[in-house]
Amino acid sequence: MSIGFDLDKMLSGHSRTIARAITLVENGGDGAAEVMKAVFPNTGKATVIGITGAPGAGKSSLVDKLALYYKDQGNKVGIVCIDPSSPFSGGAILGDRIRMATLGLDKNVFIRSMATRGNLGGLSRATVDAVAILDAAGFDKIIVETVGVGQDEVEIVKTADVSVVVLVPGMGDDIQAIKAGIMEIGDVFVINKADREGVLRTQKELEALLSLAHRPDMWNPPIIKTVATENKGIDDLSAAVQSFLEFQSTNKQAGERRRAIAKWRLTELLRERLLADLLADDGIRSKLDCLASKVAAKSIDPYSAVNAILHKD
Amino acid sequence: MSIGFDLDKMLSGHSRTIARAITLVENGGDGAAEVMKAVFPNTGKATVIGITGAPGAGKSSLVDKLALYYKDQGNKVGIVCIDPSSPFSGGAILGDRIRMATLGLDKNVFIRSMATRGNLGGLSRATVDAVAILDAAGFDKIIVETVGVGQDEVEIVKTADVSVVVLVPGMGDDIQAIKAGIMEIGDVFVINKADREGVLRTQKELEALLSLAHRPDMWNPPIIKTVATENKGIDDLSAAVQSFLEFQSTNKQAGERRRAIAKWRLTELLRERLLADLLADDGIRSKLDCLASKVAAKSIDPYSAVNAILHKD
Repeated sequence: MSIGFDLDKMLSGHSRTIARAITLVENGGDGAAEVMKAVFPNTGKATVIGITGAPGAGKSSLVDKLALYYKDQGNKVGIVCIDPSSPFSGGAILGDRIRMATLGLDKNVFIRSMATRGNLGGLSRATVDAVAILDAAGFDKIIVETVGVGQDEVEIVKTADVSVVVLVPGMGDDIQAIKAGIMEIGDVFVINKADREGVLRTQKELEALLSLAHRPDMWNPPIIKTVATENKGIDDLSAAVQSFLEFQSTNKQAGERRRAIAKWRLTELLRERLLADLLADDGIRSKLDCLASKVAAKSIDPYSAVNAILHKD
Repeated sequence: MSIGFDLDKMLSGHSRTIARAITLVENGGDGAAEVMKAVFPNTGKATVIGITGAPGAGKSSLVDKLALYYKDQGNKVGIVCIDPSSPFSGGAILGDRIRMATLGLDKNVFIRSMATRGNLGGLSRATVDAVAILDAAGFDKIIVETVGVGQDEVEIVKTADVSVVVLVPGMGDDIQAIKAGIMEIGDVFVINKADREGVLRTQKELEALLSLAHRPDMWNPPIIKTVATENKGIDDLSAAVQSFLEFQSTNKQAGERRRAIAKWRLTELLRERLLADLLADDGIRSKLDCLASKVAAKSIDPYSAVNAILHKD
């Protein structure tokens, strides 16, 4: 079986083999499909924790401290960091190395930044695949960290077993907008940098917003205060995550959530595949280039151009 | 010709007709295609200004003040706000009304928040279509504002004639990540809330990063300091935007940029259409539901499931 890496070595947790498998799923196509076919039957044991929030909320520090906490408890911890806004993969790799140095260079911690490769999308799909690889490789806790707060990032965090939303005191005039969007995905809320002014106001605002929301599962998301840089509140966060997981395990809607995630995953994969299959044709690609020039020159509208590509005009 | 709204009324700038046309493109499908076929020949006159940056940077205030500035100069100004993280359209509409009250309820300012509708994606495409509608309706300046900093938002901002990136002093530990991603899209940088501590450091960091970047067009992005809430620096921002537009107009690569944007637009449209066409089939939709349950139960891997849907197994 030639899948570009040694499956048994990967399943035993060999870091470089894991890294190679993740690169294969990042690249997409047949390679990704083969990796995932081999990996998928070995998944389902890890706890996946999604962490999102605004830039500047101190998510990286929080993730590092939570990872250390889990590691100290004897867990193997994987971190998958989604940074779609950074096209400089060099920067991401450098960042990973700095964080690895903090977290300890042993085989119980694995950290990987996912970057956007090419224009075919697929970052969401590749990230979820990377989590599956770490799961199969025996990592107990996998933390998915997003730098952005865009639609894709929110979708990825939704695929975690538990979603943590990080806020900071006094975030200014965009906070209502952020809160509105993340309220429905947050299973646990964190107010980080809680030694700053305005904690109480942020907490009151958040409580008010949460009291308006009605979750179908009747879970009441806790609000945890942390100062990640000083390692404060990390145990509270870990306990809150654990409470939600226990709540979920007794919840009838957990199966429904898993099905919804699987459907989202298939839809993402279909979206990527359909476009890739179409653009695999040289003729279609040059037609696309030609029509793009015509759209730029305003001699055809984009919808008619797409009809022309799909032969539906 | 039945396109769900009165084209002439829309072209003359009638607000409610514009709003109806935008709703049609938001809904996608044949309605969107018909609207855009009618609208497209009338586009190409507006200046499109994309504004992005981290939540909490005060983008809304900055956009409002810039819009007022343009309006006072006799322009018709459209604002399209992308808030993918907010599934509560009620909130977005309320926000629009509040801002309309600030900006003045006359027909020279039009503001619209774009929301994610359904699961088929298409927000990027709908936003670019909404800009085209405002362009055709005679708006001179169209400001596209994004709340998030995700991949989709960055792509949308890239389609503008000029991209403005907003930072604030002392954004914390995520600033490197943000900067890395937005450096390549920023034609003009703004340090807002420039009455705060740490302005000089943020400026020095930004200058250092910009000095490392080599833009293919040799443009040197200016850094503007503003205090939007006090209306300070808005004229400087307007002048910087104008400089870039003049630079672009003499630049040979402007045509290349337009073609790249058109190609991105067609690709987005194709991505949306291919999936929508596939899922228009009842049989495929129930097959997707059935396979999602199997993936959730781990009896099939997602890639094999997608092959089964596409009959490629």
